[in-house]
Amino acid sequence: MPTATGHTTAIAASKVSGTAVFDMKGAKIGQLEDLILDKTSNRIMFAIVSFGGFLGIGEKYHSVPWSVLDYSKEKGGYIVPMTKETLEKAPTYALGDFTKADGGSAIRDASYDYYKVGRDW
Amino acid sequence: MPTATGHTTAIAASKVSGTAVFDMKGAKIGQLEDLILDKTSNRIMFAIVSFGGFLGIGEKYHSVPWSVLDYSKEKGGYIVPMTKETLEKAPTYALGDFTKADGGSAIRDASYDYYKVGRDW
Repeated sequence: MPTATGHTTAIAASKVSGTAVFDMKGAKIGQLEDLILDKTSNRIMFAIVSFGGFLGIGEKYHSVPWSVLDYSKEKGGYIVPMTKETLEKAPTYALGDFTKADGGSAIRDASYDYYKVGRDW
Repeated sequence: MPTATGHTTAIAASKVSGTAVFDMKGAKIGQLEDLILDKTSNRIMFAIVSFGGFLGIGEKYHSVPWSVLDYSKEKGGYIVPMTKETLEKAPTYALGDFTKADGGSAIRDASYDYYKVGRDW
C-alpha cells in the first residue's frame, strides 16, 4: 500500500546512499553514506550520516536510527527532525568503527539512546 | 560480539551488493543484487538475488528472505541452503516490481512463504 504521503514503503538499499539529509528547518546538513545491517536478523541497525561540511568536523560520521530519518519527496531527501544544536552533540565515529569486533551493537545502543528511539530487539 | 564463526553481526549495505551466492553444494549460482528495505520500520524486507546465468531465465530476479542467506567466509559469499530444483521453482520478478505501488509487501509475503521463513511483523 502507498503510505499517506503517496510513497510506497519499499526502497532499494542501493538508492539510499548519497541521498541528501536536511535539518528540521529545511537546511541541507549532510548526506546518507550507508546503512549498517544486522547479519543475524532482518534488522537495519542504523544509518550512517555524514554532517562533516555543516558541522566542520571533517571525516566523522553519525549513527542515526533509520526511523529518525523521514523521507521528503518535496525536498528529495531525508529530514532529521532535530536542531543543529542537537546534532552537534551527537556521538561521532570513524567509518571503520561501525563493523568492528563488537558487531556494531554498542554504537547502535548509543545512537538509539541519543536520538531517544525505543528499542524493540 | 563476534558470532560463533568469528564474524561480527554488523555489515555495511554497500558491501552486500555484488556478493556471490552459492547453492547448498557449493556451486556458484548467482549474486546478490540489492536489498529492499522497509521505509517505515527498521526491517530488511528481503534480498534481491539474480540466478540468471544458472537457471537460464535471463533478467529475472528472486526475492529471498535475508535470514535464508548464510554468509560463508571460506566461500566469500552467501550460501542458500537449497537445491537447484527448489530455486528453479521460486517466484521471479522484474527489477521494477520490487518497489511498486503495493510497497513490496506482497512480494515479501510470497518469498517468506516460498522459503518457509516465519513472519515476525
